[in-house]
Amino acid sequence: MIRTLQIDAAKQGLHDITGEVSNCVDQLRQEEGLCTLFIQHTSASLVMQENCGPSAKRDLEKWLNRLVPEGDPSYTHTLEGADDMPAHIKSALTATSVSIPILEGKLALGTWQGIFLWEHRYAVARRKVLVHLGN
Amino acid sequence: MIRTLQIDAAKQGLHDITGEVSNCVDQLRQEEGLCTLFIQHTSASLVMQENCGPSAKRDLEKWLNRLVPEGDPSYTHTLEGADDMPAHIKSALTATSVSIPILEGKLALGTWQGIFLWEHRYAVARRKVLVHLGN
Amino acid sequence: MIRTLQIDAAKQGLHDITGEVSNCVDQLRQEEGLCTLFIQHTSASLVMQENCGPSAKRDLEKWLNRLVPEGDPSYTHTLEGADDMPAHIKSALTATSVSIPILEGKLALGTWQGIFLWEHRYAVARRKVLVHLGN
Repeated sequence: MIRTLQIDAAKQGLHDITGEVSNCVDQLRQEEGLCTLFIQHTSASLVMQENCGPSAKRDLEKWLNRLVPEGDPSYTHTLEGADDMPAHIKSALTATSVSIPILEGKLALGTWQGIFLWEHRYAVARRKVLVHLGN
Repeated sequence: MIRTLQIDAAKQGLHDITGEVSNCVDQLRQEEGLCTLFIQHTSASLVMQENCGPSAKRDLEKWLNRLVPEGDPSYTHTLEGADDMPAHIKSALTATSVSIPILEGKLALGTWQGIFLWEHRYAVARRKVLVHLGN
Repeated sequence: MIRTLQIDAAKQGLHDITGEVSNCVDQLRQEEGLCTLFIQHTSASLVMQENCGPSAKRDLEKWLNRLVPEGDPSYTHTLEGADDMPAHIKSALTATSVSIPILEGKLALGTWQGIFLWEHRYAVARRKVLVHLGN
């Protein structure tokens, strides 16, 4: 079973999609399995991160923004704006796909673990994440 | 089939878990398939790395410790100690899940390839890695 | 079904392997499924990246080469040459495995999304990527 999630992630940063993915798993009604997420973009990515409070997420975003700054004079891929090339680099450093086992009918996440879409651009209307549910 | 590995990774750095994962694959008794690992934490991660001698692992650890240092004045998520926020960042830069094909009943690893749990914190009693074995 | 791709990636940088992977999916003749790639090396990796024009790829390569330079005095794993340790670090920061859903018999890639083997060394004859095709 494959589901397509349409995520409104208009703001740069981490967007919690654990609820949307869990809903897909609930529809599967299967005790055990594997849930694989795939994001159909190269300027947004997936990351598993602490879901408890905003500080870890905020520090993580700030840190990566500093590692991959806008306006690097070495960039030549700049037609779409200052956030374009940093977005591609950030995507390459994080995940395009993540697989999470299903146990007792639920995503087998750790206690503090959430699933996040990491939007690296400023103004994108909608992102697509495919959810593959297998045995 | 899903198995839970409990890994004692009390020391910061790379811990070879290839043997533990191979044992799970042996129990499956299946010629072909896919073995997917998922770590249930956001301050430890998974990495495939050279399994021959300690120098590549040591250099890799040293390099990442320098890229993501403790005591960065921009961190606000510091309640659990100086190793807390660097651990979350290092986890985001490496893998939470990895999938390895099974061929002739064995993990189809490259000659020099090992599976490592990368512990990013100093003193954690035990880490959980789920092993999903599918067709 | 598992196929082995032999990729000639003699030059450092991103090599588009979308066509080779699509060929494997075509042979499967299955409407829905999951295609998982696994690279059997620790000095080359996989990355999903923009497939339109060379500028994003070139900037990405240049950026990572600057982040992980050759000749870092802290490296001890230097026996195989100046490109050896940077290759291991770059591999750890990018992906060893990627899973892509199959929809309507095709890889469900985004419009601008290509699959790349990222060769991190200078002179390697051939790389092996395993393609697992499942339900």
